[in-house]
Amino acid sequence: MSSTTAGQVIRCKAAVAWEAGKPLVIEEVEVAPPQAMEVRLKILFTSLCHTDVYFWEAKGQTPLFPRIFGHEAGGIVESVGEGVTDLKPGDHALPVFTGECKECRHCKSEESNMCDLLRINTDRGVMINDGKSRFSINGQPIYHFVGTSTFSEYTVLHVGSVAKINPAAPLDKVCVLSCGISTGLGATLNVAKPKKGSTVAVFGLGAVGLAAAEGARIAGASRIIGVDLNAKRFDEAKKFGVTEFVNPKDHDKPVHEVLAEMTNGGVDRSIECTGSINAMISAFECVHDGWGVAVLVGVPNKDDAFKTHPMNILNERTIKGTFFGNYKPRSDLPSVVEKYMNKELELEKFITHEVSFSEINKAFEYMLRGEGLRCIIRMDA
Amino acid sequence: MSSTTAGQVIRCKAAVAWEAGKPLVIEEVEVAPPQAMEVRLKILFTSLCHTDVYFWEAKGQTPLFPRIFGHEAGGIVESVGEGVTDLKPGDHALPVFTGECKECRHCKSEESNMCDLLRINTDRGVMINDGKSRFSINGQPIYHFVGTSTFSEYTVLHVGSVAKINPAAPLDKVCVLSCGISTGLGATLNVAKPKKGSTVAVFGLGAVGLAAAEGARIAGASRIIGVDLNAKRFDEAKKFGVTEFVNPKDHDKPVHEVLAEMTNGGVDRSIECTGSINAMISAFECVHDGWGVAVLVGVPNKDDAFKTHPMNILNERTIKGTFFGNYKPRSDLPSVVEKYMNKELELEKFITHEVSFSEINKAFEYMLRGEGLRCIIRMDA
Repeated sequence: MSSTTAGQVIRCKAAVAWEAGKPLVIEEVEVAPPQAMEVRLKILFTSLCHTDVYFWEAKGQTPLFPRIFGHEAGGIVESVGEGVTDLKPGDHALPVFTGECKECRHCKSEESNMCDLLRINTDRGVMINDGKSRFSINGQPIYHFVGTSTFSEYTVLHVGSVAKINPAAPLDKVCVLSCGISTGLGATLNVAKPKKGSTVAVFGLGAVGLAAAEGARIAGASRIIGVDLNAKRFDEAKKFGVTEFVNPKDHDKPVHEVLAEMTNGGVDRSIECTGSINAMISAFECVHDGWGVAVLVGVPNKDDAFKTHPMNILNERTIKGTFFGNYKPRSDLPSVVEKYMNKELELEKFITHEVSFSEINKAFEYMLRGEGLRCIIRMDA
Repeated sequence: MSSTTAGQVIRCKAAVAWEAGKPLVIEEVEVAPPQAMEVRLKILFTSLCHTDVYFWEAKGQTPLFPRIFGHEAGGIVESVGEGVTDLKPGDHALPVFTGECKECRHCKSEESNMCDLLRINTDRGVMINDGKSRFSINGQPIYHFVGTSTFSEYTVLHVGSVAKINPAAPLDKVCVLSCGISTGLGATLNVAKPKKGSTVAVFGLGAVGLAAAEGARIAGASRIIGVDLNAKRFDEAKKFGVTEFVNPKDHDKPVHEVLAEMTNGGVDRSIECTGSINAMISAFECVHDGWGVAVLVGVPNKDDAFKTHPMNILNERTIKGTFFGNYKPRSDLPSVVEKYMNKELELEKFITHEVSFSEINKAFEYMLRGEGLRCIIRMDA
């Protein structure tokens, strides 16, 4: 395919969101060839993440439609634009909603993955090279989403948003590493860094929180305490190493006090994956003085204020924020894929549903109903 | 001396605070022999720290008088009580206001120095062994202060509050390592850990803040920005490696914005040494996203609230609190003394005054007037 399509417009199927909150429509779209520093990727599998749904619903942000959503996926490079040397047609790759230019101060820092050039931008619906879309239907541009737009058989990305991975890795499994699972996993392994035998609390047992728990399991935590308002989630959470469950609704006292009592003064590490400001504060206040570390992952509302007594900090507690699990997409995702390949990381348990591309709206329904964790969408079916 | 006084009551001079805020009075006191796990130390040099003055003024806490203050000092072991094996008469030592029992979870943790048994306790005026004082005047007990009471020629401490150091170290210099200087130095070297060439902001240019700057200098920071409301402090601060000065009073915009503009987005590390809640929040908000770390050292008021937008944390910033620079007194202070011995750490510049024991009230006057940094009190004069 690549030899015949390189440099050409490709006509293929894409699921277009014409309006906020309305079912996606499978349309034939035209996908322009990649420009300088761009890559055209054939998507084989994609999955649905809350962020797609959040922006599809367009609640609280400027709507940008028509748009092609999708950012968790696995694919194969079809062709590359001028200047692209890291990738070639046939390479297996994961698209990532936040990029790594490898040249800015963040990319050069050992500590940051918040690339100045390619940091997530949910408002931009075009390519940064020329400010235009590569998707169109009869000449009408269709907007991109977070530089990935994986709900299309072919998509164009900046090379910095494409992580080349082991071609032996099954794309229908590792595609979930594009976003949520890496976010939770990295929050634990790269940021909270629990020691073997330690006690970890995870706030929120959705896919990200369960990935954080999976990280704690991999790190050898001996107690993993899941905190969630939905008791139904505990059974599933056990598969991810969660050993104990706390539902704040079951207690009269604040949840940080409940956790402190369960753990002789506080947990060693906590990871907040809900975005609720109260959960953030509890996640901080439940860590042990002297060594406790709280890691914030969930994205808060605009008007929220994180508030605590400063002595809680002074008593040798740490709060850290993380974004995409502190993974640098191009540099670090290949090693996360290897963790799956060597059976250290279990991805199958995150994949609870699978649908064909033509049934993509079902994936939205599952998520809106809170059913399951990840639904894989097969592009070839 | 030790052979004749061991097991005996020692009569010696001590500076007794009879009442809150009233000049200390040099009295002859009786110092009982050390009990089990206690050490009697002959103090050769002591210095005055803000904490002594704060509790002497008795503003905001329950007054406990008569009391012998003092907690920064250097001395020689006179005798030891039953069960003390780490120290013997003649050892050179620094008393420390917070101890290290070496047996609790904090002492066994690599990360904490907040010993469960001997953590600072400003309300207790007696020894933990029997709940009694070792000081008396004609049978009237005189209270201890933070387990050290170094404003006495002899004092009794729990063995966990005594750090044995290199006998070649000059006690009139290294005595300042008992408290404030180690607190600031360790906040930088042990907690903020700036990399060579990085930019560090220090809020508050008193002795603790200047010790934090000294730590940044030792770590090889290329820019050290001092923030203080008192412009007079900048000249002295230069000796401690401070390269730039910001007085929040000189700017219309918030100081964290001033610092962000000076540093292309934020400093790499900040260390807050004032205890002002606004400075704490600024110290956090002035660090760069992606990698910035703010370290809180200064002790806040009881009713303060640390408040920030959670996105400031989410953008990969870290807040950490520290206590006594995260140094474990017995395990770590000997190596800080070595840093001075090998000329890495410069202590002389912290010592701005010296008085004889009989003039101890002058040291209080210097501190109340904000003059100088540390006043050494010579016990033999």
